[in-house]
Amino acid sequence: MRILLTGSAGFVGSHLTERLLADGHEVVGVDNYISGQRGNTALFAEHPGFSFIEADVSHGLPDPGGRLDWVMHFASPASPPHYQQFPVETLMVGAQGTQNGLELARAHGAKFFMASTSEVYGDPHVHPQPESYWGHVNPNGLRSCYDEAKRYAEAITMAYHRHYGVDTRIIRIFNTYGPRMRPDDGRVITNFVHQALRGEPLTVYGDGQQTRSFQYVDDLVEGIVRVMGVQDHDPVNLGNPVEFTMLDLVDVLREVLDQPLATRTEPMPHDDPRQRKPDISRAKALLGWEPLVPLRDGLRRTIDAARRGERPTEAEHSLA
Amino acid sequence: MRILLTGSAGFVGSHLTERLLADGHEVVGVDNYISGQRGNTALFAEHPGFSFIEADVSHGLPDPGGRLDWVMHFASPASPPHYQQFPVETLMVGAQGTQNGLELARAHGAKFFMASTSEVYGDPHVHPQPESYWGHVNPNGLRSCYDEAKRYAEAITMAYHRHYGVDTRIIRIFNTYGPRMRPDDGRVITNFVHQALRGEPLTVYGDGQQTRSFQYVDDLVEGIVRVMGVQDHDPVNLGNPVEFTMLDLVDVLREVLDQPLATRTEPMPHDDPRQRKPDISRAKALLGWEPLVPLRDGLRRTIDAARRGERPTEAEHSLA
Repeated sequence: MRILLTGSAGFVGSHLTERLLADGHEVVGVDNYISGQRGNTALFAEHPGFSFIEADVSHGLPDPGGRLDWVMHFASPASPPHYQQFPVETLMVGAQGTQNGLELARAHGAKFFMASTSEVYGDPHVHPQPESYWGHVNPNGLRSCYDEAKRYAEAITMAYHRHYGVDTRIIRIFNTYGPRMRPDDGRVITNFVHQALRGEPLTVYGDGQQTRSFQYVDDLVEGIVRVMGVQDHDPVNLGNPVEFTMLDLVDVLREVLDQPLATRTEPMPHDDPRQRKPDISRAKALLGWEPLVPLRDGLRRTIDAARRGERPTEAEHSLA
Repeated sequence: MRILLTGSAGFVGSHLTERLLADGHEVVGVDNYISGQRGNTALFAEHPGFSFIEADVSHGLPDPGGRLDWVMHFASPASPPHYQQFPVETLMVGAQGTQNGLELARAHGAKFFMASTSEVYGDPHVHPQPESYWGHVNPNGLRSCYDEAKRYAEAITMAYHRHYGVDTRIIRIFNTYGPRMRPDDGRVITNFVHQALRGEPLTVYGDGQQTRSFQYVDDLVEGIVRVMGVQDHDPVNLGNPVEFTMLDLVDVLREVLDQPLATRTEPMPHDDPRQRKPDISRAKALLGWEPLVPLRDGLRRTIDAARRGERPTEAEHSLA
């Protein structure tokens, strides 16, 4: 198949590109490097199935010509420090960016795949979160530039499906980690790994009792490929339901690194959810999918990659 | 002041235009007549303070030149039959339309006024709804093209305020009625008034026990003018907190019309909220505002106007 993938130079985008190419597909990557990384494009530069267009999908998605089987929309700043540095761009890639992808899919008779997020659940009152939960999101708070952009993206994806008959998929990605995350992405595993490798104390926000579920990127990519293979338009959670507190995570990291790790405490960021955990019943039933990589193993692979220097090149926009 | 008002040919827009002109301001109206009505533009055609640009604000908001003190964004299909006929246009006017208004305001150093809606509360679990309630909205249901568009509009308005320093206002309008509503707008008061005047039975959905609060349009317009006069960027509810069930409404209408009225029952529409009622504590404290027109009086004025034929001309797009 021939697949146009926005956000191909992002963390998830680069792993998905790798998998799609390995499966024998052609990939047309698109990125504007606002949070993606040139090094992630360079990885595939020699691959005969890969081509790349540098473009801001919010301002227009270039038609690569030829046949397209899928338009997959993964472009967006995704970590709080990125989207809060670029709030308007984040809103736009959820609205204009998604619509440009839908229009391109519609023009080609291609399928459209929307990468939504567990952030549509906001600070949830229901645990774990099934897809039927409508979420608890502040529509105009500091995180709204991301959360509302993604909720809008889901709404317009379903509007194109219902109104224009576009064959659409929506996934909601929960916390995912692995090699090639940006060291400055501000997410806890990246912070911890890079702090530990630099010999710095690990930063714990609040009392460290907030929980997260961590999905290894290979599990996510397997889920994405399976969603492409089913005919179902409603959102599907893809995440790892095993919960860890931040302090648990520190312990696992101590074990994997086999070294003592100091911590230091900072106040909880505004609107930071206390807990978020996927209900993956639907993915299990629909796709026969569940995450297979335990945190210990995934962390080991992530750390090995970081130690080998398998890290992104410098970002276009460095973050304060 | 010189004020650009999108949606000037809509129901609320036309009443707001009337008031702003009466207060001595200049109004540049903008509408594309997707749900607005040419007759509402014609009302002010002879007024020296009024000018009009026919344009779709989602595809670009023309700069009228000269000084602008305010950009007020009221354009959107607002009733379920309208926005479900135009789901993509409704999503776009909330995203691209709002952003075009914000950019115009930013270019002029003008203030920006966003007409949001009680629909951002969705099917609420908190009664009455204060502005601090985050709402309960299905991000991809049939109503999401409207609800999520307005939530996105709030998010991008706050992003322009926080990130670019645009001086913004956000109101959340609850059910409003009065003269010049479209007979086909699908909302209950319009339906009941026109059914009663045609001698037809009134259509009651479900058991008729769902409640609504009904705000007379003059009260809303007074609230809008007061919000323009305060320096406050957080959303303000404008609505009438007095609740009526649908069956109460039938009784008031019987009394006002002084005639017997038959009813007939239809099933509840999908996702229709059972109850919605504003908490107006913030508007009272901030603006010294509360609704003054009782339902009985407002209905009388609405019916008198309808009897005098003070009705919109035909819509551009007639609704099924």
